[in-house]
Order: sequence, then C-alpha cells, then structure tokens
Amino acid sequence: MAEKATGRLEAFSDGVFAIAITLLVLDIKVPRDLPEGVGLGQALLQQWPAYLAFFISFTFIGIMWINHHRIFSLLSQTDHTLLVLNGLLLLGVTVLPFPTALLSEYIGHAEQRIAGLVFNGVFLVIAIFFNILWRYIVGQPGLLAKDADPQAIAAITRSFAYGPVFYLITFGLAFFSVIASLVMSVALAIFYALPGRN
Amino acid sequence: MAEKATGRLEAFSDGVFAIAITLLVLDIKVPRDLPEGVGLGQALLQQWPAYLAFFISFTFIGIMWINHHRIFSLLSQTDHTLLVLNGLLLLGVTVLPFPTALLSEYIGHAEQRIAGLVFNGVFLVIAIFFNILWRYIVGQPGLLAKDADPQAIAAITRSFAYGPVFYLITFGLAFFSVIASLVMSVALAIFYALPGRN
Amino acid sequence: MAEKATGRLEAFSDGVFAIAITLLVLDIKVPRDLPEGVGLGQALLQQWPAYLAFFISFTFIGIMWINHHRIFSLLSQTDHTLLVLNGLLLLGVTVLPFPTALLSEYIGHAEQRIAGLVFNGVFLVIAIFFNILWRYIVGQPGLLAKDADPQAIAAITRSFAYGPVFYLITFGLAFFSVIASLVMSVALAIFYALPGRN
Amino acid sequence: MAEKATGRLEAFSDGVFAIAITLLVLDIKVPRDLPEGVGLGQALLQQWPAYLAFFISFTFIGIMWINHHRIFSLLSQTDHTLLVLNGLLLLGVTVLPFPTALLSEYIGHAEQRIAGLVFNGVFLVIAIFFNILWRYIVGQPGLLAKDADPQAIAAITRSFAYGPVFYLITFGLAFFSVIASLVMSVALAIFYALPGRN
Repeated sequence: MAEKATGRLEAFSDGVFAIAITLLVLDIKVPRDLPEGVGLGQALLQQWPAYLAFFISFTFIGIMWINHHRIFSLLSQTDHTLLVLNGLLLLGVTVLPFPTALLSEYIGHAEQRIAGLVFNGVFLVIAIFFNILWRYIVGQPGLLAKDADPQAIAAITRSFAYGPVFYLITFGLAFFSVIASLVMSVALAIFYALPGRN
Repeated sequence: MAEKATGRLEAFSDGVFAIAITLLVLDIKVPRDLPEGVGLGQALLQQWPAYLAFFISFTFIGIMWINHHRIFSLLSQTDHTLLVLNGLLLLGVTVLPFPTALLSEYIGHAEQRIAGLVFNGVFLVIAIFFNILWRYIVGQPGLLAKDADPQAIAAITRSFAYGPVFYLITFGLAFFSVIASLVMSVALAIFYALPGRN
Repeated sequence: MAEKATGRLEAFSDGVFAIAITLLVLDIKVPRDLPEGVGLGQALLQQWPAYLAFFISFTFIGIMWINHHRIFSLLSQTDHTLLVLNGLLLLGVTVLPFPTALLSEYIGHAEQRIAGLVFNGVFLVIAIFFNILWRYIVGQPGLLAKDADPQAIAAITRSFAYGPVFYLITFGLAFFSVIASLVMSVALAIFYALPGRN
Repeated sequence: MAEKATGRLEAFSDGVFAIAITLLVLDIKVPRDLPEGVGLGQALLQQWPAYLAFFISFTFIGIMWINHHRIFSLLSQTDHTLLVLNGLLLLGVTVLPFPTALLSEYIGHAEQRIAGLVFNGVFLVIAIFFNILWRYIVGQPGLLAKDADPQAIAAITRSFAYGPVFYLITFGLAFFSVIASLVMSVALAIFYALPGRN
C-alpha cells in the first residue's frame, strides 16, 4: 500500500544516523590511573586503536548517510516493506558503536582477529541491507519519483554493487591481518571522499 | 484549546524515538577480562541475551514509531491533552533502555522472571498508552484531518486493540517461561514486518 | 540585527530537549551483585528515588519543551541576543541529567538536602532564564509575529511569572524536607497536565 | 556535481551538534564514596574543573552551531566536496566530549598541560576546518544563493579569519598555563555573546 511522503522517515533516519555517529566518541576513554612512568601523552598515544576504530566508523556512517540521502532524494512514496527494510538498515547502523568498541578494545591483543571479523562483518551486512533496500525500491513501481534522473539511479545501482564486494574483501583480509583490513578501510574511505567520485 | 499544526510535536517525538532506539546499543558491553580458557568468540556468543533483548526492543520501538507516524499523519491539530498523552507515550519509550538492560543482565539467572515481567510489563503499559492516545484523538472533534481516510482510522483502531492483548499474553507467559515470552515477542515482530500486514 | 526565520533554531532546540529527556534513563541502573537474601524485585523497589527523580525531570523537561514551543510559535524572527538567551536556556536543559542523577543517588542519605537544593536550584535557574528570554522577546520590536495572538502573549507572561515563584518554594522546602519539595514538584506537574490549564 | 537543496544536510548536522552538546553532561559525575569528613557540597565544589570544561565546550559548540547556521543560510546548493568538508567539521564536533572529559579529569593534576593542549588543539583544528569549508563555498560558483547578502558573506569571512588566531593563542597559552588558556576561552565566549557582535 503506497503511503505518505518520505519526510518523517528521513527525519527519523537522520536522527538515528546522527546519534549513532555521535555516540561513537563514548568509546574513547580518558586514561585514568596511569601506570608509574607513563605520562598522559604516552597513554593517549597508546590508545590509537580507539581513534582508528572511531575514525573508520565515523567515516562509514557518514558515507552511509550520504547514500541514504541519495536514495531518499529519488523517492516520492514509501510503503510498508520499505519501512521494514529501512528499519533493518537502521538496525545495522545503531549496532555500530558495539563492534567499534570491540575493535578498539582488542586491536593488538591475541583475540584481535575475532574483533576484526565482527567489525568488518557488520559493515558487510549493512552493505547487503543497502542493496536489498535499493533493489526493492527499483523493482517496486511508484516508489521512485517520476522525474527521478535515470542516470542517478544507474549510478546508485553501480556504486552499491561494489559495496558488498569491498566489505567482503576487508572481511576476508581480517582473517590474515586485522591491520591490513583496517588500512584498506581507511583507503576506501579516502578514495570515496575524493572529489569526482560521486 | 485547539492549537498549531503537528510539525514540531512530530519532530520532537521523532527525536525521542530515534535516541531511545540508538541508546539501546549501550547495553551491549564489550567482554573484558576474559576468564582463562574462554576465547572472545565464545564470550561474545555467551552474550546472546543482550543481543536478543536489543533486537526485541529495537523492533518494538521501530513498530511504535511507525504507529506514531500513522496516527500523526491523520491529525490536523493538536491540543493540550494530546500533548500530555503523547508525553506519557514518550515517557514509556524513553524508559525502554532500562528494562532492556535489566533483561539482558538477568536472562538465564535465577531472578529472570522478575526481569521478564518488568520487560513485558513496560511494553504492555506503552500499548495501553497508545490506545488511550488514539481513543482521545478519535473522540475529540477537530483533531483528525477532515480528509482523513476512514478506512485508515478503522485499521488503526483495530490494530491497536490487539496490542494490549498480545502484550498481556507475553506478560502472562513470562510467569511461566521468560524464554517463551521472548520467542513470542520475536514472532510478533516478524509477523508485523511481513508485507501486507499494514 | 534581525535575521532568518526560526526553523533551524527550533529544530536544534528540539534536538537538545529530546536528547536531554532521553538521556535521563541512563541514571536508572540495573541492580547488580544483589546482597544475600535480597531479591531482584526488592532491589528494584529500593531504587524508587531513581524513578522519582526520572519522573520529575522527564515531566519538567516535557513542560519546558511545550513552553518553548508556545514561545517560538509566536516568533517571526530571531536575532543574536535571542540566540544567546535561547542558548542559556538549553544550557540549563542539557545540565539536567546531572542533578537528576545526584538526587537519585542521595535521596534517603545524610546528604540529601544538598542534592535536593541543587536539583530544585537548577529548575529555579531555568525558570528565570525562561522569563529573561520571554521578556526580551516581548520588549524587542519585530521578533513577535505581527499576527501573534495578544491573548496568547498575555497567557505566557502570566504563566511564566508563576514559574520562578513555584520553583523558589520547592527550593526553600528542600531546606526543611527534600521529600516535601519533591511531592510538591509532582503535584505541580500533575496540576499542569490537567486539561484546561493551558 | 551540484545537487539537491541543503535541508537534509542541515537536519543531520543539527542532530550531530545537538547530541554532542547534550552528551557533554555525561562527563559531570555524581560524587560517590565521599571520603571521611568531606560533605557532598564540598565534593561538588571540588568538581569545578568538570563544570568549567562543560561550560567552555557547551559555549563553543553553541557558537559553532550558530556559525554553521549562518553559512548554510547563504547556500542554495550542496555538492560532494561540501558534504565531505562538512563531514570533517562534524568529525571535530563529535570528538569534543572526549577532550572535554580529558580536561575535566586532569585540571589541577601534574599532567594538566597535555590535557589543555589536546583540548585547545581540537578547537584549533575545528576552526581551521571551518575556514576550509567556508573558502571552498566562496570559491565554488553556484553554491552560494544568488541573493546571498555580500555583506553577510564578508562578515563571515572576517569573523572566521579570527577563529584560528584566537584558538592558536589559547593553544600556545596552554603551554605556560592551562588556567590562563581557559580564562581566555571563557572571555572569548562572553565577548562573542555580547550583543552587537554578530
């Protein structure tokens, strides 16, 4: 059943993205009870995994928000299934502070592989959710605005197809080297941010 | 006294829903100080009650948001009583991270019944608040938009009438088996998400 | 210098109100490490100060939001001073989770008087900020919309004048009895919520 | 590639600003386990660094929001680079609760200089991001609305140029005296809030 316009759904989604991206900082802890001979500067530097995990998650939530924005700017209607699929996507986004905290806690420890797999796995799942949402929209008559630019539609289809592939590679990489998978994540984020990409 | 349009009330309510749904993740804790012989993977799996509680609360807050959205899309006016009743509803929603944390802490422990009763009890109370709000709206001339679809109104009345019944059953079930009550909650959520329900 | 319309200022303020009201729940803690012979139900009941403090703060933030809404629905312009005074108000609102946590920690302890004074004192200061903001708006030509209802303006002036008086009484009461000051707060909140008040 | 209007970008940014400014309060902790002979009032007063750090960060996030507001009220379009530069700015804003907590923990301790440098350094970086964003907007044809007031544009350019200078001074001051750098921050905030500044 086709329904109202997309305004409130966007507002709600924006809220969830904005909160998830801002909660990430709660996982960067103030160093307390410094061990003998360790200065605050050193203690702050030793926390680099927390900064790295924060940066990657911040960047990817930002990119997801841009993608969400691109999708919804082409819609003229929502329906029940779209609400549910969008909810699945938001489920992934709200979960993100957890794997981010997990990664920042376990990088450099014996168990870092599990943390890296969970971290990259969540992003992989979200990328798949994005594709499911997009395919549903494209396949369902009446959701896309009549004047939606076919080139913009094709560009999204193309760009979303890469997502799961890239995240699958970072996921696989984490089996061998968590650091390598994170370096690739950062490289992807920078690549995406370069002008002319969009 | 009939007042302004509903824009800012929706924006505020959306904010509360979005924040409550996103705060839930703060109750999923990173396992620390793993006991001897327990790997991170195992420790993560042992946290399944936290994931289950998160999933149920996320889903129900999402469903409540959709219902809130449906109600407000039919309104053309607000008044003081509506503000107060909407406030009661938001009170229930903002409280939710607490019973969610309680449940995820106590599933599988001796005291899980109390936790399950509180968890299901809060949802029951919110379902009742939804019905009070809706009945007030239907009974108060001038709140519903003149062109509000009578079928949509009837559909909400019908669907809301089920809410307290279902939650009362899960509440009662929790006396006998917390797990059974949660399974029923998950089943309800999936049932609701199926296409054609709305 | 008169400036743009009030849309984004309202959206930002709504966000702050919505977040502050939702963060309050983080002060209701899950009881852990129950002492011997104390069941979860009993432990939850013993936390009543946290629920009471939550309820009072939730209600008053809700009432403040309604008042903010009433003020801004009459405005057609903002200016720099209005932004600053609104900022002072939001400062008070964002602070609220702290005195709420303080009160819920110290009710029933020897030091409860200090906690009660801080709690009621913050509300007193916010009520004064509301009056400063409102007097500035009324006194500054061009901020109120030309078609703003003079009766609505007079009603706000009257209702805001009571605020500091009531909060001053609860503040003073806290010297003698914290519980009495909280009972009065709850009574005020219920009185405010009654129909016909607005 | 020039794109849609700025509505959703502003809404998302507003959300991030509103959440960051409201999360600051989580760093003001309720004093627990008071040492013998220390009353609650005294314990609360001893926490002045937390209040000071809160106040400075609250004020500066507020000022940044006003500046963001001023910039976006002049825009008619966004593009990919603008999204990325705005994202960098929001990165700085979401980080702020961390240096705020760091400062409030370490003022008065031996390591306070590092905390002060990090605190002022983050504000310096954000001020530079603001200038990068603004220069990009001014230099890119089509982003500014055609009817954007040239005086407003010049006023922003002038006022933003001061930002990094002031923050550089507070940063440098922190080498010699953290307290002096904070006093200057408070003075700046009050100066900014004075009428006629904008």
